[in-house]
Amino acid sequence: MNPSRHDLIRALQAFLPDEAILADEEALRPYECDGLSAFKQLPLLVAMPETVAQVQQVMRICHQFQVPVVARGAGTGLSAGALPHSGGVLLSLAKFNRILDIDVQACTARVQPGVRNLAISQAVVPYGLFYAPDPSSQVACSIGGNVAENSGGVHCLKYGLTVHNVLKLEVITAEGELLTIGSDALDSPGYDLLALIHGSEGMLGIVVEVTVKLLPLPEAVRVLLVAFDSVEKAGQAVGDIIAAGIVPAGLEMMDNPAIRAAEDFAHAGYPTDAAAILLCEIDGGLDEVASQVARVRGVLMQSDATEVRLAVEESDRQKLWKGRKSAFPAIGRLSPDYYCMDGTIPRKALPQVLHQISELSKEFNLPVANVFHAGDGNLHPLILYDAGKPGELHRAEQLGGRILELCVKVGGTITGEHGVGVEKLDQMCVQFAPLELAQFHAIKAAFDPEGLLNPGKAVPELHRCAELGAMHVHQGQLAHPELERF
Amino acid sequence: MNPSRHDLIRALQAFLPDEAILADEEALRPYECDGLSAFKQLPLLVAMPETVAQVQQVMRICHQFQVPVVARGAGTGLSAGALPHSGGVLLSLAKFNRILDIDVQACTARVQPGVRNLAISQAVVPYGLFYAPDPSSQVACSIGGNVAENSGGVHCLKYGLTVHNVLKLEVITAEGELLTIGSDALDSPGYDLLALIHGSEGMLGIVVEVTVKLLPLPEAVRVLLVAFDSVEKAGQAVGDIIAAGIVPAGLEMMDNPAIRAAEDFAHAGYPTDAAAILLCEIDGGLDEVASQVARVRGVLMQSDATEVRLAVEESDRQKLWKGRKSAFPAIGRLSPDYYCMDGTIPRKALPQVLHQISELSKEFNLPVANVFHAGDGNLHPLILYDAGKPGELHRAEQLGGRILELCVKVGGTITGEHGVGVEKLDQMCVQFAPLELAQFHAIKAAFDPEGLLNPGKAVPELHRCAELGAMHVHQGQLAHPELERF
Repeated sequence: MNPSRHDLIRALQAFLPDEAILADEEALRPYECDGLSAFKQLPLLVAMPETVAQVQQVMRICHQFQVPVVARGAGTGLSAGALPHSGGVLLSLAKFNRILDIDVQACTARVQPGVRNLAISQAVVPYGLFYAPDPSSQVACSIGGNVAENSGGVHCLKYGLTVHNVLKLEVITAEGELLTIGSDALDSPGYDLLALIHGSEGMLGIVVEVTVKLLPLPEAVRVLLVAFDSVEKAGQAVGDIIAAGIVPAGLEMMDNPAIRAAEDFAHAGYPTDAAAILLCEIDGGLDEVASQVARVRGVLMQSDATEVRLAVEESDRQKLWKGRKSAFPAIGRLSPDYYCMDGTIPRKALPQVLHQISELSKEFNLPVANVFHAGDGNLHPLILYDAGKPGELHRAEQLGGRILELCVKVGGTITGEHGVGVEKLDQMCVQFAPLELAQFHAIKAAFDPEGLLNPGKAVPELHRCAELGAMHVHQGQLAHPELERF
Repeated sequence: MNPSRHDLIRALQAFLPDEAILADEEALRPYECDGLSAFKQLPLLVAMPETVAQVQQVMRICHQFQVPVVARGAGTGLSAGALPHSGGVLLSLAKFNRILDIDVQACTARVQPGVRNLAISQAVVPYGLFYAPDPSSQVACSIGGNVAENSGGVHCLKYGLTVHNVLKLEVITAEGELLTIGSDALDSPGYDLLALIHGSEGMLGIVVEVTVKLLPLPEAVRVLLVAFDSVEKAGQAVGDIIAAGIVPAGLEMMDNPAIRAAEDFAHAGYPTDAAAILLCEIDGGLDEVASQVARVRGVLMQSDATEVRLAVEESDRQKLWKGRKSAFPAIGRLSPDYYCMDGTIPRKALPQVLHQISELSKEFNLPVANVFHAGDGNLHPLILYDAGKPGELHRAEQLGGRILELCVKVGGTITGEHGVGVEKLDQMCVQFAPLELAQFHAIKAAFDPEGLLNPGKAVPELHRCAELGAMHVHQGQLAHPELERF
């Protein structure tokens, strides 16, 4: 044990009980990675504070020792955003797992950051309320992590991302100060720090309390399953539904490989010969839902769908969703390994991009299954590969990079809801011009001038992009950084 | 003319035509104030560039001369955010008035910042689309100003504020660099600069292009007029409608002084004996609207309303809205002067706050009329006074300050949509703790380290708050800054 580590532990022991400081390699092991296990690193030590005052003290000590701090919620992140720093403290917020207050009249709940996403909705069911954003990992993921990644989910088409469902945050700065950001009212004066913290991947502060908005549970929910004989037709139907002024609660798409894998696994009753299916969920008042379902059917009449099936009974609806929700593990059974991508595109580019992904799949000789939030244009191509075969992992990563660059080329972005973390640092060089990255670094410095919060994540250093020689793509035009318009 | 002003004009003349530089006092006069004429100041000169390159050059020259720059759209702002700087350039974006592109398939429009808010909706009517945020000043105000203030309007209850309806911005920095912020897709990686620019009151950059989201025009629109014999009952009904899971397109409230003034002016058919009325607009598909109207009626059955009237015909609907839209000028006829406040409160506090405002009105012996976005909890108390009577203006300002402090006390904020500008600098000391203000200054420095963009607006210097001895209110508790928990 080097002396600084020893001193750091001594300083933390002054206010943390022994069991809240993990330092043995065996105890550190479970924290070496998050949901993206391709990246692994043991932290210097793990601190598990239990009170806001303790978090403030941890931050003050780390600031004094100039030791990096990486915050971790449930560790379900998919871009290695919670990958530990070898010389830093891994700050686990697992003990911040209490719902502090439910205000039924205001439709809000004050919760600690370690509370699981689904636990919020479960706690407010008795009041006829729910918390809308529902990432696939909602059983496990924490609301603090949702804020860090600005998570979406099936229902964010209608109800928005995490940022649209949070009113207020309590945040600890790199120096251990407590900031209240946002308010209990609709809007706040001053710069929009609330939005800035959302999706900032633990780089600007440590969230220690979240006030979320709650919504009344809809009176009725219906799901339509719609099948198509081509992926492009399904993509077109998505645009048509939205263009008709209908906002479904969710509008998901699966292509044939995903349909077959999910059906085999979950027996959801999917048509396994379809090239693509859409799952379109409509919620609201009983009459309103009936009327909207009729309108969606009307749009689909024009769309060359091969089958339209309506689930009215709750059990039928659950069965249809079960297939969608188990698609990832189901595809996992088809192939020794898979790599889940996350890019967002303008909705109108769906047919074109899905076609080009299938071309890229052939070029790289790796199957790609698509299961995604079609209404938002948020793609999740799953690249199937076998890490045991020499070169396949590398080829999968290359294919993934090409898919993300394709997203940027059509005016989209390299991430929808999984964040940048470590995984997509290189693609950030494609997405942004040097000046835009420099502006991100300036924002970072405004919160954390010494760079102690989650260093090395989310925003690449400018020299990394320069060394990569990355092509920055702007408005569909490729351009070398040195040829930028600046 | 002092030499530096002379040099500055010469430098601008190198690339701006003579008619794009205003320097005579007579020519400067129209720019001395915005919509809040209590604050007046002539600028050093006015520059009216016509191209993005010219804006970049103006900014580079001003940066070189270290001259402040205040951007101005249509000048309809109500918090003196566009008040000129005596030693600075007033940068008018009036010539940026072109709609550059309408993408019907993607439901977006690329527009220049000087385009009027209503002009966007008018341009896209042929495609069955509209731009949702609709401030009262929508005939005159510009989309660039809407971004600067993060404007709302009657329909932002359902469709969100400006920030929720903008996808992408082109922004010129204080040093004259061009940044692309946001993308054509739903979400972008990196820190949320798009939200940060919204509501930043021209302090972080100059917006030179805005990509807005367009929505399909609803098939049907209905308005309910609901009358009550007490303001508190009307406030309660607002909460009940929202709690029932109904999201009206707009939910506006007027109290008796406002009703009588508007009726006298616009002959909208309002019940002039009502203590308060609500205007509840429902839009969507035909059946859906019918169903929602029925549900609202159901809620109102329990609410002790004295009258519920449905406008189905477009002309009846327009008549009801005409009263609401002309309420401000109508009240202007009642009194030589009025002062329009803008605070936001949690919706559940409506009955209590409306009652306390009427108590304050008695205490200060000044009538207050209320016309506001009740669904959002966004209050607009209009304080009636006579500037000709000694002390009345001062009393009106004091009353206004007390009302805003009341908003903060119940967990609300000192502005909903009018911004802070110069008007509410002191109330910012009430809303925020010193550390929170310091964080705003750090953000400002990350964009504009030399403080050249709209100096002296929106975020007060810490010494101003200290000198003011302002009471910072946190979570309903008053606290002296020196007793803060930091």
